[in-house]
Amino acid sequence: MIYEYKHTCWRSSKSDSSGVSNSGESSKESSRCSTPVLDTDRLQDKMKRRIESGDHWFSLEFFPPRTASGAVNLISRFDRMGSGGPLFIDVTWHPAGDPGSDKETSSMIIASTAVNYCGLESVLHLTCCNQTKEKITAHLNKAKRLGLKNIMALRGDPIGEDWVEEDGGFNYATDLVKHIRCEFDDYFDICVAGYPTGHPEAESYEDDLRHLKEKVDSGAHFIVTQLFFRAETFLKFVKDCRAVGITCPILPGIFPIQGYHSLRQLVKLSKLEVPEEITQVIEPIKDNDAAIRSYGIQQAVEMCKVLLASGEVPGLHFYTLNREVATMEVLRQLGLWAEDPRRPLPWAVSAHPKRKVEDVRPIFWASRPKSYIYRTQDWDDFPNGRWGNSSSPAFGELTDYYLFYLKSKSPKEALLQMWGEELMNEESVYEVFTNYITAQTNRNGHKVMCLPWNDDPLAPETNLLKDELEKVNRRGVLTINSQPNINGKPSSDPIVGWGPAGGYVFQKAYLEFFTSSENVTALLQVLKKYEPRVNYHIVNVQGRNTTNAHDMQPNAVTWGIFPGREIIQPTVVDPVSFMYWKDEAFALWIEQWAKLYEDESPSRMIIQYIHDNYFLVNLVDNDFPLDSCLWQVIEDMFALLDSPRETQEGSQS
Amino acid sequence: MIYEYKHTCWRSSKSDSSGVSNSGESSKESSRCSTPVLDTDRLQDKMKRRIESGDHWFSLEFFPPRTASGAVNLISRFDRMGSGGPLFIDVTWHPAGDPGSDKETSSMIIASTAVNYCGLESVLHLTCCNQTKEKITAHLNKAKRLGLKNIMALRGDPIGEDWVEEDGGFNYATDLVKHIRCEFDDYFDICVAGYPTGHPEAESYEDDLRHLKEKVDSGAHFIVTQLFFRAETFLKFVKDCRAVGITCPILPGIFPIQGYHSLRQLVKLSKLEVPEEITQVIEPIKDNDAAIRSYGIQQAVEMCKVLLASGEVPGLHFYTLNREVATMEVLRQLGLWAEDPRRPLPWAVSAHPKRKVEDVRPIFWASRPKSYIYRTQDWDDFPNGRWGNSSSPAFGELTDYYLFYLKSKSPKEALLQMWGEELMNEESVYEVFTNYITAQTNRNGHKVMCLPWNDDPLAPETNLLKDELEKVNRRGVLTINSQPNINGKPSSDPIVGWGPAGGYVFQKAYLEFFTSSENVTALLQVLKKYEPRVNYHIVNVQGRNTTNAHDMQPNAVTWGIFPGREIIQPTVVDPVSFMYWKDEAFALWIEQWAKLYEDESPSRMIIQYIHDNYFLVNLVDNDFPLDSCLWQVIEDMFALLDSPRETQEGSQS
Repeated sequence: MIYEYKHTCWRSSKSDSSGVSNSGESSKESSRCSTPVLDTDRLQDKMKRRIESGDHWFSLEFFPPRTASGAVNLISRFDRMGSGGPLFIDVTWHPAGDPGSDKETSSMIIASTAVNYCGLESVLHLTCCNQTKEKITAHLNKAKRLGLKNIMALRGDPIGEDWVEEDGGFNYATDLVKHIRCEFDDYFDICVAGYPTGHPEAESYEDDLRHLKEKVDSGAHFIVTQLFFRAETFLKFVKDCRAVGITCPILPGIFPIQGYHSLRQLVKLSKLEVPEEITQVIEPIKDNDAAIRSYGIQQAVEMCKVLLASGEVPGLHFYTLNREVATMEVLRQLGLWAEDPRRPLPWAVSAHPKRKVEDVRPIFWASRPKSYIYRTQDWDDFPNGRWGNSSSPAFGELTDYYLFYLKSKSPKEALLQMWGEELMNEESVYEVFTNYITAQTNRNGHKVMCLPWNDDPLAPETNLLKDELEKVNRRGVLTINSQPNINGKPSSDPIVGWGPAGGYVFQKAYLEFFTSSENVTALLQVLKKYEPRVNYHIVNVQGRNTTNAHDMQPNAVTWGIFPGREIIQPTVVDPVSFMYWKDEAFALWIEQWAKLYEDESPSRMIIQYIHDNYFLVNLVDNDFPLDSCLWQVIEDMFALLDSPRETQEGSQS
Repeated sequence: MIYEYKHTCWRSSKSDSSGVSNSGESSKESSRCSTPVLDTDRLQDKMKRRIESGDHWFSLEFFPPRTASGAVNLISRFDRMGSGGPLFIDVTWHPAGDPGSDKETSSMIIASTAVNYCGLESVLHLTCCNQTKEKITAHLNKAKRLGLKNIMALRGDPIGEDWVEEDGGFNYATDLVKHIRCEFDDYFDICVAGYPTGHPEAESYEDDLRHLKEKVDSGAHFIVTQLFFRAETFLKFVKDCRAVGITCPILPGIFPIQGYHSLRQLVKLSKLEVPEEITQVIEPIKDNDAAIRSYGIQQAVEMCKVLLASGEVPGLHFYTLNREVATMEVLRQLGLWAEDPRRPLPWAVSAHPKRKVEDVRPIFWASRPKSYIYRTQDWDDFPNGRWGNSSSPAFGELTDYYLFYLKSKSPKEALLQMWGEELMNEESVYEVFTNYITAQTNRNGHKVMCLPWNDDPLAPETNLLKDELEKVNRRGVLTINSQPNINGKPSSDPIVGWGPAGGYVFQKAYLEFFTSSENVTALLQVLKKYEPRVNYHIVNVQGRNTTNAHDMQPNAVTWGIFPGREIIQPTVVDPVSFMYWKDEAFALWIEQWAKLYEDESPSRMIIQYIHDNYFLVNLVDNDFPLDSCLWQVIEDMFALLDSPRETQEGSQS
């Protein structure tokens, strides 16, 4: 009898136990320990898999911004464009701009932020021309330390006119590829540049192909090409590459024309010629930006369709010029933009190699994931499977609230418009929270689009709770985090789904809010009725904490069951980390809100009063198959507060 | 405002993060890492908690058996009596019976088996009279190594008449208590004996009380008394103990009279007097065992009621004489016998301190938990939270299938009656499996109560699947393990519930069976239709394995969600350990069944044929919210086999 080995097969010809002992070693690296849903493959492996499955991908190229506010914008662009599902992004290297420094605008920091904070597989460009080996090695060591795993190895443009080859120096990208392999073995995946019409400085097209072959043979894993304007240019190039024995993936560089001037500038820099058929179209409309953009999109889509249909192109590489619209539109028309990208976990997974096993986080930072990543960046181990097993208790201090990737996207002016130029009393604050929930304009005609704890409008999932949230915020239960209960929805659910196909996801209802000490007194009275169904933690800024958490254990509030895997529980309410979150949550009142106003101003004093006197409360309804009782808890609290004084036993305020 | 701190409270007067860093240390011992449902308290802590909550307990004393088959019986008695929920059991020490040896009947091995294999908190007696310090220390070291945590420190009876006190030797139990404290610090919890009517050798009752005080002051944690016949004897003793300053728990030794001769013998040994009111009742009925037993139960129940009502007695200690009926009946009448003991996990938790964190096991050993414990006894870490995190891949060899705690409870004679004196063909074997499932008598009038893989009748949970199981076994799908799917039943469910109150338990449907290679060929064909809903592993005795398990990852098939805790997933289907189980499962055909018959006999050759040619199959239906599709899979397999040959594409047998 012969089996068809259609699936993962594993044979052992021995019948004794020793036949399997090798495959079960309890090392951190073995597949038995890896987090079920996380992808620990290298970029080259991901490409291999996508090529095998015939699943086309795209990638996006960005350049580092010039200003700090440009960096904030670029990072939120990473988040938005990351949601479309690029296989990787890459960040260019500008020798003149101190690219390896710690400045928030450096290539190094931008690429590292993309990996660590935006969860994007990232390729850092690196040029070697006029650099010492020591300098290059230092850059590579830093990149490695920051979690970068991929390098685009380039020669770069010589500085000055009188550049000559140096013996033993970096004269060609090949030298850099060799150096990376020599010093870092196979740690980095390496990309090199290809020139479909030959490098402008090459002696000939054939000579350039030989150089490319040499770069690949030195240890590069894939090629990204310079931009071009005709599909046949690229396809001929691929054919010629294959003919000289280059077998690695070759990705076409796509440049959607976005404006007359940017095209002219780029063409000048890259010494390319714009074909006649394009010039003829755009010259007459050169002052009509919209028309040029629209043409650029159409032209790129058509060229990409030819490329993809050729069977020679596994993925498309986009020169975005740090803009979103044109590239996203091309990708949408090609059907490559993931409208509903499958989330491996309910929160964005960091792409840092050290964090790849991480699959549990406290719920508190749900709206501030970058802050969580920042505060845990020094951890050696990340929790995997169970919160307590490997999570470090040490959260970094969060003193720099204006750290660029934690900065509010809105300028001070806009914040004042949203949160009030002048606050009258605590109720003014309740109104801000309520307007945020309802997405209504406030009395000055401005929509409240963010709060210090939530830099984005309400998540679709939170929107499910909108009516209830509005009601309680209006009365001073100032909600900053919540999730509905979910009892086994498919993992493909567009709003609450996550993880692999064929699974089911679950949640316990969660509610977190600031509220006055009077409310808390009544709440504690009410909560007695909800034992053991509701778990709570109540803490003020001094750290005075009341909880019914059993032995200070974490409570899993989000989990998923998937075919052929262990249970995944990505979100917990953890008593210990709540105390670190508490510091951050209270500080945001002052750092992000109070400081908008003058010292000693009434507005500032109102926020300061809330900071000093309110409590931070979190509630979990453990009975996830039933309708959440948390709204009833709040309602009971208000009912008790509204009832005649003498019935409020236990209240001693 | 003042809070009522009714629950676990945790205050921190500092508002900075350092205020909490102490409580979050990531050590293996911290509460954040401990398995949520497992009890890691010491015996003395358990007593304290029960005393505080006013929750009366009971404990059971056993003596080591004389023969190996006596040991097998005693261990299954541990399992049965353990289900009633004793706080602990204790095993007596008989200096003449080589009590510290490795013999299966020694006190040491019996107590260690109770801890490791039956999951019972156990106290090992130890006597010191006529022993060297070295010998005692060696015994204690061995006890510690075997996972014992509690010692009953006794002097024991001097051997020979001319015993005199030795300087620096062990003359009294006090010396032993001091020695244990001195050599093992507070590793062991220590119990000492109290004599409600004074020790027979003591100079006076008062003198004996002083000795007892001295024993407790030397480091004992609680007292168990010699038996007595009147409640007032014990209550006076407790009063006198308290008067001299003994504050630890004092547990009355209860001896339900079970027969005339055993009573006389015990009384003689312990130099006690039977009170007139008892002698008057039993002398006239001394030849009527049933009447004496019935009286003994009634007398014990009445005395215990007085003791418990006194408020002086936190728990009752029973001298069982290794018998079940009388003690269980007394406990039932007192309402102390747990009819439905809450299971912390769906399998019996070992009481070995090293294993207390263990909360995941492969499903394969579900009916052979002692074998699993035996084969993993050398592991340094046990999996906690996730199967792969700490599970060692090395399973011990299982060569000794007659290891006393793995032995079948039935003698060879009974096995032949159940499984057939003579097998005709493979169908005879199908019949044995079918009769086991249906609990019907076979053609020789014997009920099949066990199979080599299942030493007990069908579990109540498996009984839910009885009709389906019968149907498939009749046709040669020889099932050895199965569980129904469960979609969120309360943790208190009497059949499938486990874990703390207020939770929900879940299961994926599981089916494991032996079947012929012809069936497997059809099954593999059928399984294509059930991708990815059904996971399978199919292996023969040579280890030829076919599976669709993703990256050889474990599949959680039993899990529970509880208030205020992380998810618990106590049972997995793990591809790696399945290969170790396969060796054991196939070997049982030969070791337990084939070897019942003569070499070369047709019966033996039939079993050998099955062993050599059948496959072991396991199936998981991942879609736990739907009705199990596994029966449909088997039905489709039979339908394919029944269909005309040419439609069976892929079959090449």
